[in-house]
Amino acid sequence: MENGQIRLNKATGEWVIYAPSRRKRPQDFQQASQEYSLTDRSQENCPFCPSNHQETETILLEIQNDQQTSWQTRVVQNKFPALNFYENPRRNREGIYMTMPGYGHHEVVIETPEHQQTLATLSIPEIEVIIETYHQRYLKLMEDKEIMMVIIFRNHGKAAGASLRHPHSQIIATSIVPSHRRIQEAEAQRYFDHWARCVYCDILEFEIKEKKRVIVENNLFVAFVPFAAEFPCEIWIMPKNHQADFGSITTEEKTAFATILKDSLSRLYHKLNNPDYNYVINTAARYKAEEPQLHWYCQIRPRLTTPAGFELGSGISINPSIPEVDAAFLRE
Amino acid sequence: MENGQIRLNKATGEWVIYAPSRRKRPQDFQQASQEYSLTDRSQENCPFCPSNHQETETILLEIQNDQQTSWQTRVVQNKFPALNFYENPRRNREGIYMTMPGYGHHEVVIETPEHQQTLATLSIPEIEVIIETYHQRYLKLMEDKEIMMVIIFRNHGKAAGASLRHPHSQIIATSIVPSHRRIQEAEAQRYFDHWARCVYCDILEFEIKEKKRVIVENNLFVAFVPFAAEFPCEIWIMPKNHQADFGSITTEEKTAFATILKDSLSRLYHKLNNPDYNYVINTAARYKAEEPQLHWYCQIRPRLTTPAGFELGSGISINPSIPEVDAAFLRE
Repeated sequence: MENGQIRLNKATGEWVIYAPSRRKRPQDFQQASQEYSLTDRSQENCPFCPSNHQETETILLEIQNDQQTSWQTRVVQNKFPALNFYENPRRNREGIYMTMPGYGHHEVVIETPEHQQTLATLSIPEIEVIIETYHQRYLKLMEDKEIMMVIIFRNHGKAAGASLRHPHSQIIATSIVPSHRRIQEAEAQRYFDHWARCVYCDILEFEIKEKKRVIVENNLFVAFVPFAAEFPCEIWIMPKNHQADFGSITTEEKTAFATILKDSLSRLYHKLNNPDYNYVINTAARYKAEEPQLHWYCQIRPRLTTPAGFELGSGISINPSIPEVDAAFLRE
Repeated sequence: MENGQIRLNKATGEWVIYAPSRRKRPQDFQQASQEYSLTDRSQENCPFCPSNHQETETILLEIQNDQQTSWQTRVVQNKFPALNFYENPRRNREGIYMTMPGYGHHEVVIETPEHQQTLATLSIPEIEVIIETYHQRYLKLMEDKEIMMVIIFRNHGKAAGASLRHPHSQIIATSIVPSHRRIQEAEAQRYFDHWARCVYCDILEFEIKEKKRVIVENNLFVAFVPFAAEFPCEIWIMPKNHQADFGSITTEEKTAFATILKDSLSRLYHKLNNPDYNYVINTAARYKAEEPQLHWYCQIRPRLTTPAGFELGSGISINPSIPEVDAAFLRE
């Protein structure tokens, strides 16, 4: 590995270059999240704090706290939505090109009434309520037959694209499925057609046996640094049982997922000094929920490096960090 | 367009969401490049300044200035290379995975001896020498039969991943072709098989006729904001003559390319206050140089927005800016 290595991500077909001459120890990436220096909204101005709620705003979902004294999570429309559901997603010609109205849903999941918290500092039961909220909205959004794909994601800190400090996730539901996703499906399909197995199930089995890239596991989930991680300290959290669709998560799995998500984010928080990160739940597009070769997972990407012209032009990532080293660092 | 629009990039098959509620006028993106606040290397410490050249360093290419008094451009190995050419790019098994040594070339093109310049402030003849340098190294690197793809790119400013202020580009040559590239090829192939035309040639013809996304053109090149631009003020510079391979650029085209590149970068420099940006020359991989459906182009991507969890998870870009508006802004 002295002169570097190139690895292929078996599941996505993506290449990653490992560059030891640019190598850093994981702890060299320590940095306080820039989220506290974000557009400095005090709690008085925060639109997600309970005291600032506008009565005119439509609440899409609220889950009460245990004492039933106030909401624990609340879902609202994004005030600056990337997509709207006013029009039909009908394709149009524009000269040689194709367009369609920006049909879709863009929601905000306010994860707690408490402005100063973050996911790593919430309790497991509180995170369980967030997962429950994701699940209810996911099922609700899939009832809209125009929707082909639901993306649940979280931006933490300025480098990760967050613009508000109050803990929140977002959900975007689209009427399109990008080629990015179809390619992943095609890779998994090819693997299945060869081996009659889900490639993700095979990866899980191998990683659990190998141990060296596993960070933590429980009876239903594993958190590991993927063999061909694109970013330093990238983490994938995957259900052990084959499950293409996040929508089919069970109550027991919600608890186990909340537990391992809290654990993974706490490790980043404490070992890398609250880094900026994104996570996303990759789940099957419509019509693919029953496919035997797909498998949902949560991908956590700390924003510790800046993709530059090479990544833009080639689609190949350069990762200065070694997955096994990152895993050991996050595990200990 | 009031409720937003979704567009398909005809050439790459990528979707882009236009979000008017997040819309900004192009001038709202004005920002001084952070490059001046980079790791503050004074000229005395800059490894690219002529006075600091280490005699032990291998010079891969030098082109003299007109007066033949010193070098105008110089090419050296990257001191922290992402890839090396010590080993063969032989594939290995690692359990269920595949790896290979990090084979390749990683070079730095020092664009001028003058530390304080940038491409937008150099003269056209000086930029012509840079293009000539790219071309000579491109042809040289393709002589290495293990090399499948050569990526010429430039990172300007900290947000674009640059770590040194002295004007420079980079060239990375890889023994792999990523699926990212193969998908673009497949899209173009499908178009060719349907229409018996290069999709890029058809886009050029349409854009020149439509005019509204064209920024500037000369007899051999057009600079335009693509119909499905992924980023605010994204610019594609494309040769008017069908040409899959940057390696086949003519002397006359080098002058015309230098002229339009200078013009495009100057517009960004003056109208957006020297923004951070990346550019990359997208050209055919080995064995594809003669293909009738591919077409090289230079993609300039100002770093004015931050891709977040949604982009990471879906591969769909959200662009708060409208291509026609950006083009008018850059054209005037």
